[in-house]
Amino acid sequence: MQEEEYMKLALSMAIAAKGQTSPNPLVGVVIVKDGFIVGTGAHFKAGTPHAEIHAIQAAGEQAFGADIFVTLEPCSHFGQTAPCADAIIQAGIKRVYIASLDPNPLVAGKGIKKLRKAGIEVETGLLEKEAVELNQPFFHFIKNKQPFVTIKAATSLDGKIAAATGDSKWITSPESRRDVHQLRHEHDAILVGIHTIIQDNPRLTTRLPQGGKNPIRIILDTHLRIPLEANVLTDQAVKTIIYTGKDADSDKMRKISNEFVEVVQLVSNVISIEDVLKDLGDRNIMTLLVEGGSEIHASFIEENAFQQLIFYMAPKIIGGKQAIPCVGGSGAQLVEQANELEFIDVNQVGSDIKIAARPRRKGSTQCLPE
Amino acid sequence: MQEEEYMKLALSMAIAAKGQTSPNPLVGVVIVKDGFIVGTGAHFKAGTPHAEIHAIQAAGEQAFGADIFVTLEPCSHFGQTAPCADAIIQAGIKRVYIASLDPNPLVAGKGIKKLRKAGIEVETGLLEKEAVELNQPFFHFIKNKQPFVTIKAATSLDGKIAAATGDSKWITSPESRRDVHQLRHEHDAILVGIHTIIQDNPRLTTRLPQGGKNPIRIILDTHLRIPLEANVLTDQAVKTIIYTGKDADSDKMRKISNEFVEVVQLVSNVISIEDVLKDLGDRNIMTLLVEGGSEIHASFIEENAFQQLIFYMAPKIIGGKQAIPCVGGSGAQLVEQANELEFIDVNQVGSDIKIAARPRRKGSTQCLPE
Repeated sequence: MQEEEYMKLALSMAIAAKGQTSPNPLVGVVIVKDGFIVGTGAHFKAGTPHAEIHAIQAAGEQAFGADIFVTLEPCSHFGQTAPCADAIIQAGIKRVYIASLDPNPLVAGKGIKKLRKAGIEVETGLLEKEAVELNQPFFHFIKNKQPFVTIKAATSLDGKIAAATGDSKWITSPESRRDVHQLRHEHDAILVGIHTIIQDNPRLTTRLPQGGKNPIRIILDTHLRIPLEANVLTDQAVKTIIYTGKDADSDKMRKISNEFVEVVQLVSNVISIEDVLKDLGDRNIMTLLVEGGSEIHASFIEENAFQQLIFYMAPKIIGGKQAIPCVGGSGAQLVEQANELEFIDVNQVGSDIKIAARPRRKGSTQCLPE
Repeated sequence: MQEEEYMKLALSMAIAAKGQTSPNPLVGVVIVKDGFIVGTGAHFKAGTPHAEIHAIQAAGEQAFGADIFVTLEPCSHFGQTAPCADAIIQAGIKRVYIASLDPNPLVAGKGIKKLRKAGIEVETGLLEKEAVELNQPFFHFIKNKQPFVTIKAATSLDGKIAAATGDSKWITSPESRRDVHQLRHEHDAILVGIHTIIQDNPRLTTRLPQGGKNPIRIILDTHLRIPLEANVLTDQAVKTIIYTGKDADSDKMRKISNEFVEVVQLVSNVISIEDVLKDLGDRNIMTLLVEGGSEIHASFIEENAFQQLIFYMAPKIIGGKQAIPCVGGSGAQLVEQANELEFIDVNQVGSDIKIAARPRRKGSTQCLPE
């Protein structure tokens, strides 16, 4: 195997732990001695050992004189665990391959410096693009102290998320709906508007064949219209946070608040997406999945408060001027004022197409992966 | 080269003549003698020699004892040209590979029978699927005596074809717009509603760097509201046919009619898509490109009067409840009543995605090509 293949293996272990490590990054590690893989590791959960530690433990004495492939720069500071750079030095590792640097400007490069000072050879940049891509949400969170926001919609080919009657079951295939549960597992929190709660009474939990992690449920409900019997209030499957406006009924607030339900009253009468994202950031929520409906999507898009869009598009035409569009609101008045994106991935899921897009970067060539 | 590769070459020549042969099918031919290609040919234009004739002429004496690869069963009857089966027999061809049979039930199999009777070995079914796919419009036309209808739309990711103000310039990339001109070149006729004429005053001609063929322009205009200065009336670039209702102003009808403009008055007050398609079939129009707008798309979709949809989807969000959806009309009341399709192709064109879909066949597995 070549260096790149070892790093790919390290990346694939990191990817596998998606959704488990928040607010920590995804990290994978491979240790190689004389062409033999002698240790592997990933970071599985915040508060538990880092990837490097698992791999060094697996390698045992074989770590001495070995090469280590790490997807993210080893930490050099004491957090909940001892610095990984120290562990690498103590294990007698000869050479360290690092894919991406630590995004935290306060510590970036410090791990590398420490390793080099100890006489270890350090190579950086191997599969850097893939490693940065993998930890986009972590990098975004460290930089902005707000969650990385993914807007998800299930649409017909003609961009509708429900018929004029409000009926929306089911637009997409069972495979797409299962994929959405994987998305939920990978996110710290899920957000919908009160209209979705009233219309569909969803549980917003993760229901994968193997189980999975439920995201914290976030409801935007300006006038606290949520029905007392809503599943998100009664099922106690995971915490629900309701953001409401300043005039919300305080009796109702008290009535629905409990160990599983928190009501956060904002200072104004209109819910500010910015304020919600700041508060979620303060709660260490690194990733947020926005699941609609039409007006919630429009609010996030109009405020440019999103980092990714994932559309599951079914091969059907709902049609109708009065059908519900995937993005409502007032919209752009001219096409040149439209919100510019770039496609980053298009895949088939069941009979549907899954399209991923991001806000357009300046100077982007806008090419899909081959 | 293997048999399949010769047939692929024959298919690629057939494909290259797309848009030129109507109402005849696309056909490609390769002749091989002792492992050498000695002749190739395609059908270029109705009324000119068939593909087999070009290839046999190119092969000359080498055709004697050779194999011929034909994408469509050679004809056995006298049309505008002599039967190709006879030409193959006279040239002394030893073996004939045929990809797809003639779709006309009156003549299907007759060419093969004639060849076999003359002692020629005939193999059928090589790349049959690809060959049938290639001539879908021809097969549809022969079977139904109506054009093969492709609905084309340029949409934002959220399914809008214009902002609420009607502005639609430009949603898609220059590459997509150029691709649309290729589509126009490949179609016998192009159809829009009167609203599109009034809103955009399009020319509906083919403007490719190398030129290209203009499709006949078809306008649906129930009340004959077309402005006298509309480009499709004044530019005389190609014929324009206007379908209008029974109460249309007969003075205006006479006024706009000329060598380039024909007004067809239907018997009812509402334009029936079925009647229009029948009339176009009678005019030997084999392929029709429907270019909108929103309500025209809805009419064709609600009547299931289409064989293909091509959506150019741009990476942008227009948003807005009042923006123009790619498919208007009254729409399905329930998702389960939506018009079911299957995706047949997804490609990148410039910064956009080009999505092709067809009405869902029963029992289809709905898998995109790998």
